Amino acid sequence: MTSKMTSQSAARRSAGAAESVAGNGLLDRRIFLRSGAVFAAGITSGALTAPAAGAQALQIEPWMKTPGAPLSGYGQPSQYEAKVARILTPVPGQTQIGTSRTPLHLLEGTITPNGLHFERHHSGVPDINPDAHRFVIHGLVRQPLVFTLDALSRYPMHARTTFIECAGNGALLFQNAPVQQTVQQFQGLLSCAEWTGVRLADLLDEAGVDPKAQWLVAEGADAAGFSRSIPLAKATDDVLVALYQNGERLRPSNGYPMRLVVPGYEGNTHVKWLRRIKLTEGPAMTKDETSKYTITLNSGKSLQFVHPQECKSLITRPSHGLAMKEPGLCEISGIAWSGYGKIAKVEVSADGGRSYAPAMLQEPVLSKSLTRFRMLWRWNGGPATLQSRATDETGQVQPTRAAQIASRGSRTIYHWNAITSWGVSDKGEVKHVYA
Amino acid sequence: MTSKMTSQSAARRSAGAAESVAGNGLLDRRIFLRSGAVFAAGITSGALTAPAAGAQALQIEPWMKTPGAPLSGYGQPSQYEAKVARILTPVPGQTQIGTSRTPLHLLEGTITPNGLHFERHHSGVPDINPDAHRFVIHGLVRQPLVFTLDALSRYPMHARTTFIECAGNGALLFQNAPVQQTVQQFQGLLSCAEWTGVRLADLLDEAGVDPKAQWLVAEGADAAGFSRSIPLAKATDDVLVALYQNGERLRPSNGYPMRLVVPGYEGNTHVKWLRRIKLTEGPAMTKDETSKYTITLNSGKSLQFVHPQECKSLITRPSHGLAMKEPGLCEISGIAWSGYGKIAKVEVSADGGRSYAPAMLQEPVLSKSLTRFRMLWRWNGGPATLQSRATDETGQVQPTRAAQIASRGSRTIYHWNAITSWGVSDKGEVKHVYA
Repeated sequence: MTSKMTSQSAARRSAGAAESVAGNGLLDRRIFLRSGAVFAAGITSGALTAPAAGAQALQIEPWMKTPGAPLSGYGQPSQYEAKVARILTPVPGQTQIGTSRTPLHLLEGTITPNGLHFERHHSGVPDINPDAHRFVIHGLVRQPLVFTLDALSRYPMHARTTFIECAGNGALLFQNAPVQQTVQQFQGLLSCAEWTGVRLADLLDEAGVDPKAQWLVAEGADAAGFSRSIPLAKATDDVLVALYQNGERLRPSNGYPMRLVVPGYEGNTHVKWLRRIKLTEGPAMTKDETSKYTITLNSGKSLQFVHPQECKSLITRPSHGLAMKEPGLCEISGIAWSGYGKIAKVEVSADGGRSYAPAMLQEPVLSKSLTRFRMLWRWNGGPATLQSRATDETGQVQPTRAAQIASRGSRTIYHWNAITSWGVSDKGEVKHVYA
Repeated sequence: MTSKMTSQSAARRSAGAAESVAGNGLLDRRIFLRSGAVFAAGITSGALTAPAAGAQALQIEPWMKTPGAPLSGYGQPSQYEAKVARILTPVPGQTQIGTSRTPLHLLEGTITPNGLHFERHHSGVPDINPDAHRFVIHGLVRQPLVFTLDALSRYPMHARTTFIECAGNGALLFQNAPVQQTVQQFQGLLSCAEWTGVRLADLLDEAGVDPKAQWLVAEGADAAGFSRSIPLAKATDDVLVALYQNGERLRPSNGYPMRLVVPGYEGNTHVKWLRRIKLTEGPAMTKDETSKYTITLNSGKSLQFVHPQECKSLITRPSHGLAMKEPGLCEISGIAWSGYGKIAKVEVSADGGRSYAPAMLQEPVLSKSLTRFRMLWRWNGGPATLQSRATDETGQVQPTRAAQIASRGSRTIYHWNAITSWGVSDKGEVKHVYA
């Protein structure tokens, strides 16, 4: 309905070939129903003859016996879903500095609800009065400008759905031994939303950019004055000063009342609580881009301003913490993304990479956005190693762990994008493994 | 960036024609910056010579002087956005029966955050324990089935973004005089989300549909046992048993732990808290589809089972309650949708329908989903009448009010989809008018 087969898989289908599409039980998705897998319980008494058959399988539960809760102004999740929350990983001894992580293993689709979008703060969440907030553009411009929120709200708006990923997402994967954590714990600095705001290019045009300007530095109104440099070419391409997230105003933990959205770039460039942009000849070398966010190679040299997040994917279900319950058919589900453009293909393996088959991609596939992929699998109850490998429209292929370590070394904690492997035991336990 | 011109508008641009695209100030969107409109305040002292120019326009606000709030498990909106909430319109004397309405005039983009999705309840919101909940398929099937939430979660998932609109949305527009209310108050029974769940077609295939079955009746686990009949052809086309809304599990007020999503059909068919589907030869004529949701014509005859919501659009900004502040350039923003497919075109008028120009549509334009449209306008400070008119991919055009009353009469309160008009006074006040 809203998914598509890759051409390779479609060709296999039309050729009427075997149902198996890769080793260790990966299957053509169409066979699910033909297989006779029934997870529902049958109701055996007088199935077709008694018109009310089936009704007796239902109890009148307590919540049907009295009227329910009243209408509400702003809805909240069910009390039974309290576990679906961000987990907090503050700097030791702090509550305001650190990260909160999105429960990717408990979510579906591609949108992250605003309450679960990851956070990374350097001095807590400011409680900004929007009427007092000002945003200034200055430096190498013809006319410095100061914007109120009201003034900004009069400009033409643009919207796009895009992911934000922290540069340090997956940092623990550079370690020598695989961590036994959930996807949320070691890859949860990743979220996706529909952002609406004003094109930074439009505001820069108004200010009049001096030809000498090649960079800008953006600063937030938090107590850290968090600031990052961004190349002017990116700023005038697709950067937004975002006011809305998934339809409503930004929330304080995501930059209220305004933040940068820098599609595809590492998360910290999407400066929250935006108060100032200064046009400059070169990068400002702020404390935040020299003390952090550089990639130190094994040689001791460092790569600086490696901005786009690389092509990457993750299987979210099954994954560590979500054990297999019993052998048989199930769906492997995951997400893929690239800071360089659209996802072109995600391949899934159940035998540790010896064989792969293309997964179905949820449509629409959007540039620099999360893409949900799905693969049908018959688990035979034996050991399996699950992997996913994404390719983007520029041809960038998600590397193996060995290739990533070979190119970037293991002295850094940034820009991990290699293939993640889940080892399934014959008991159904799912462990993080290096394979 | 993420919008497109219609071909007509694009042709006008490439021809280098006048900036005006329709009467009373509607403009080609590209002229915004060339027009010299600057809503920001200029900073005049030593703009280009002093490197720090602009910085003095910024105060160090209190929230920059101390660390902010700590990390949080589930984020909430800013205290300054408390007005962005659903408004409650219960049946008099009740708190659990009635509606809560989405603040469409305060939102942007196309996604409705889960806490703001409209509600329509017939006996309140049940607090369902998902482990105790059962969903049964029975009636004219080979094998009645009962599903736990765990069982349902093992099936292949499908996702789609689609709107839900109450059949009674806009009911007050059948009245003889235009109501002076916000969009939220009289059109707020409309929301849009990314839904993920199991195709009902897959579950029906497992149960084995008897060839005599042409309809089904779906029942909710609320105290009202709310139930609606749906044609089998629709059920096997694109209906989902949805488990997730914008990535997270459904919320209680939107059907936790499972609901039907029936793309394009009137809201009440998307049965919440789904507990039972019975396959039948004809419609069940439940209390909920005979006492309500039929369209009584002036002749006294009633139309029953008018399921898809018709092609429709609304300008959300400016609109009643959002006055114009001063003459000059601004953006007209609104939403369009159709239960029959994709929006093909939205035309906007500033002179009460004498002239129209095509608006820009936010991409991607998805079938049976909200589509955001935008139009540049130079308000000259005089009276204006704003309208939008949507056309869908099947060729259905949003009717005038007169045409709608002529075809459906004014004895019903359902399926209002005619053009809405906003009258702007020379003081900038925005009133709902019939034009």
